[in-house]
Amino acid sequence: MHTTKILLAESEIPTHWYNVVADMPNPPAPYLAPNGELITPEMMGAIFPPAIIEQEMSQQRWIPIPEEVREIYRLWRPAPLFRAHRLEQMLGTPAKIYYKYEGVSPAGSHKPNSAVAQAYYNKAAGIRRLTTETGAGQWGSSIALAGSMFGLEVRVYMVKISYDQKPFRRSMMQTWGAEVIPSPSPLTASGRQILAEHPDSNGSLGIAISEAVEEAASRTDTNYALGSVLNHVLLHQTVIGLETRKQLEQVGDYPDMIFAPCGGGSNVGGMMFPFLADKAAGKNIRLVAVEPGSCPTLTRGHYAYDYGDTAGLTPLMKMYTLGHDFMPPGIHAGGLRYHGDSALVSQLYHEGLIEAVSVPQIATFEAGVMFAKAEGIIPAPESNHAIRATIDEALRCKESGEAKTLLFTLSGHGHFDMASYDKYFSGELEDFEYPKEALDAALLNLPKVSAPA
Amino acid sequence: MHTTKILLAESEIPTHWYNVVADMPNPPAPYLAPNGELITPEMMGAIFPPAIIEQEMSQQRWIPIPEEVREIYRLWRPAPLFRAHRLEQMLGTPAKIYYKYEGVSPAGSHKPNSAVAQAYYNKAAGIRRLTTETGAGQWGSSIALAGSMFGLEVRVYMVKISYDQKPFRRSMMQTWGAEVIPSPSPLTASGRQILAEHPDSNGSLGIAISEAVEEAASRTDTNYALGSVLNHVLLHQTVIGLETRKQLEQVGDYPDMIFAPCGGGSNVGGMMFPFLADKAAGKNIRLVAVEPGSCPTLTRGHYAYDYGDTAGLTPLMKMYTLGHDFMPPGIHAGGLRYHGDSALVSQLYHEGLIEAVSVPQIATFEAGVMFAKAEGIIPAPESNHAIRATIDEALRCKESGEAKTLLFTLSGHGHFDMASYDKYFSGELEDFEYPKEALDAALLNLPKVSAPA
Repeated sequence: MHTTKILLAESEIPTHWYNVVADMPNPPAPYLAPNGELITPEMMGAIFPPAIIEQEMSQQRWIPIPEEVREIYRLWRPAPLFRAHRLEQMLGTPAKIYYKYEGVSPAGSHKPNSAVAQAYYNKAAGIRRLTTETGAGQWGSSIALAGSMFGLEVRVYMVKISYDQKPFRRSMMQTWGAEVIPSPSPLTASGRQILAEHPDSNGSLGIAISEAVEEAASRTDTNYALGSVLNHVLLHQTVIGLETRKQLEQVGDYPDMIFAPCGGGSNVGGMMFPFLADKAAGKNIRLVAVEPGSCPTLTRGHYAYDYGDTAGLTPLMKMYTLGHDFMPPGIHAGGLRYHGDSALVSQLYHEGLIEAVSVPQIATFEAGVMFAKAEGIIPAPESNHAIRATIDEALRCKESGEAKTLLFTLSGHGHFDMASYDKYFSGELEDFEYPKEALDAALLNLPKVSAPA
Repeated sequence: MHTTKILLAESEIPTHWYNVVADMPNPPAPYLAPNGELITPEMMGAIFPPAIIEQEMSQQRWIPIPEEVREIYRLWRPAPLFRAHRLEQMLGTPAKIYYKYEGVSPAGSHKPNSAVAQAYYNKAAGIRRLTTETGAGQWGSSIALAGSMFGLEVRVYMVKISYDQKPFRRSMMQTWGAEVIPSPSPLTASGRQILAEHPDSNGSLGIAISEAVEEAASRTDTNYALGSVLNHVLLHQTVIGLETRKQLEQVGDYPDMIFAPCGGGSNVGGMMFPFLADKAAGKNIRLVAVEPGSCPTLTRGHYAYDYGDTAGLTPLMKMYTLGHDFMPPGIHAGGLRYHGDSALVSQLYHEGLIEAVSVPQIATFEAGVMFAKAEGIIPAPESNHAIRATIDEALRCKESGEAKTLLFTLSGHGHFDMASYDKYFSGELEDFEYPKEALDAALLNLPKVSAPA
């Protein structure tokens, strides 16, 4: 009999988050205002509570997780690490495949790891309401869940194409008491401006962020919560990698390669950062971010200062970007349609510590169905990206005979994405390579700014 | 810090199923043919493999679980037992509330516990195809999953109202490679007959069973798999109660009352049978089956020999029944719409070892939403029945000041039932008490048969 699930007791939920900034070869590029000045903590105070701002700027290696947050984590954490025996057999690969399954959270993905922390710090700061955006719905569900746990009102701006494709994500958020608004909406100036220019807009994460930020900035009882990209979000997600390290130690293993889906970077940071110090110290481990060919931020974007949202309300961050006015195609991995990427992930990619690959959409669903038939769990379309890259590597191992240890993040289940699977089964899905002309045009629209010396 | 999840290692997956027949005060009433003769194992051979028939008839207390089945169980078992700290606080009850969460299976409910075993025994007997029925879709999904694990083709007759209400359950089954047919269908004589009389029929579990049995009986390469009611199904489900006993021992607790939703009896048998010998030996424990007021089989049905399906193709079983031609209202707990009940559960209820209550539909959703806000997980509508009864008891404890230990089976998540939650939120749900005239009329239609002396 093979052990399938590697479990940890609740007492082994990490007590601290890991801040990769402490171990990066170079300090992170600072956030800038449009005039080139450094963003100060005070400037962020309009939409974030003090503890979050401190984490966003912190250089401290270990940051304690409040007991109130660990108490909620206990509802699903530690998340199981699986050895994919049946997938290995199906592929006939000598590689060992592990996956960390974050779909055990009530919202069905890794996103509550940060949502719960953010709700806690906002509640502690006397905030009564949160606004946020959501693409695939995983972040919106998570902040709805976290809001209900701490008694906060939640309003979610949901990218319109996802709102239409995934009605039951909306019902899920409503079950936890949140209000869900399709974005672009007439409720904000940012939304109204987009609707005036593109009345049939599918929306985008960038637009939804503009709407949520605008509302939070205009109300003192309301703050904003972001589900990816920012340092503090990736910090909260490091419980994924910290637990996984322990679980692999328990079975005496260590990964040769780690794969995670990459949209804004919360999966990549969450799983990979706790392994990054090893890599920086010369350990032979490869960290591979996997993104859609239709939204190839790391693999084909520009490394430059850009806004995090469409309307230009956020600070400028140095990151790989497709341009903040990027209008993504309606691919089904809604969580991977963001124009930019975490500044930390971008810098580590730029410095060669993290790699990236892009994969076409149809091949990701093919991988997801193969995985479901072998391992049972039906994955989220975002997770299918990591599965595709892992399977490809496992098949290369089959050719070469190498018995590599592969690890990927199964970031969530696909229970709210079955309409996308239906489209895959019926042959309606398309592959889409982002056109070079659009990338070149975006370059012209990047804000002209440079960091102070 | 409170422990929330009580976990067992994979090595503690039960090695044997528990057969309650060995500990029942009286032997089970035999299955009969319409002419009153005893059903023989040979008669069941047309649709079941030998190992299943042996289990159906067995009086042996412990039946070994094949290693191949335990190997698949490892993908999600042992299932966690939760202490509902947050629900207790929300209710302000002195009662302790535990729930066993079976939604961790890839199909999202307890049903794979039997599906995997049935697929294994059929594969071992050289069977190539399975037919089955499904109501809410939980059993169909489970047999689709199990079929994919053992390389069996699966055809699922899905009750039409569920097929329409839950399109993504269908997609889920298709992901695992199963074929899904709305029932009543023109593919079988049973289906064609219903369609001729009721072209707009919503379908029922009884009709879908007729279709699946008819097809299996007519093909030598095809067997039938049932998701509830029969002895072997309840036997397989006893892993639920066996694990729960161990988990409660681990925290030094024992339930005063156990609640489980009751449709065909697989939850009731699975959780309660392993506690029943204690009860039969005089232990002070109450076992409460919870059913919908709209389908009040135990609380208002007749205890009599009746068919398990609508067309009268199954053996006659002595059970509580609303009549085999019962046409259930379109309530949302699709898994609880069956006209009959397990013969074992029926007999134990008749003998006073198991109790039953019925609850109205709207109150069950109210309980489910309360649970989701406290504990995170969004429950299946079936599970909401057990939650309702548990909350009611916890509130009685609040009145009386009793610190009872309450345990319920959270049989599955509601990720594929959000359309039902939508109806609840929009005020479209109705309560429905099954009319007395219909119950009296059903009595006239019961088959006239009695067991041989």
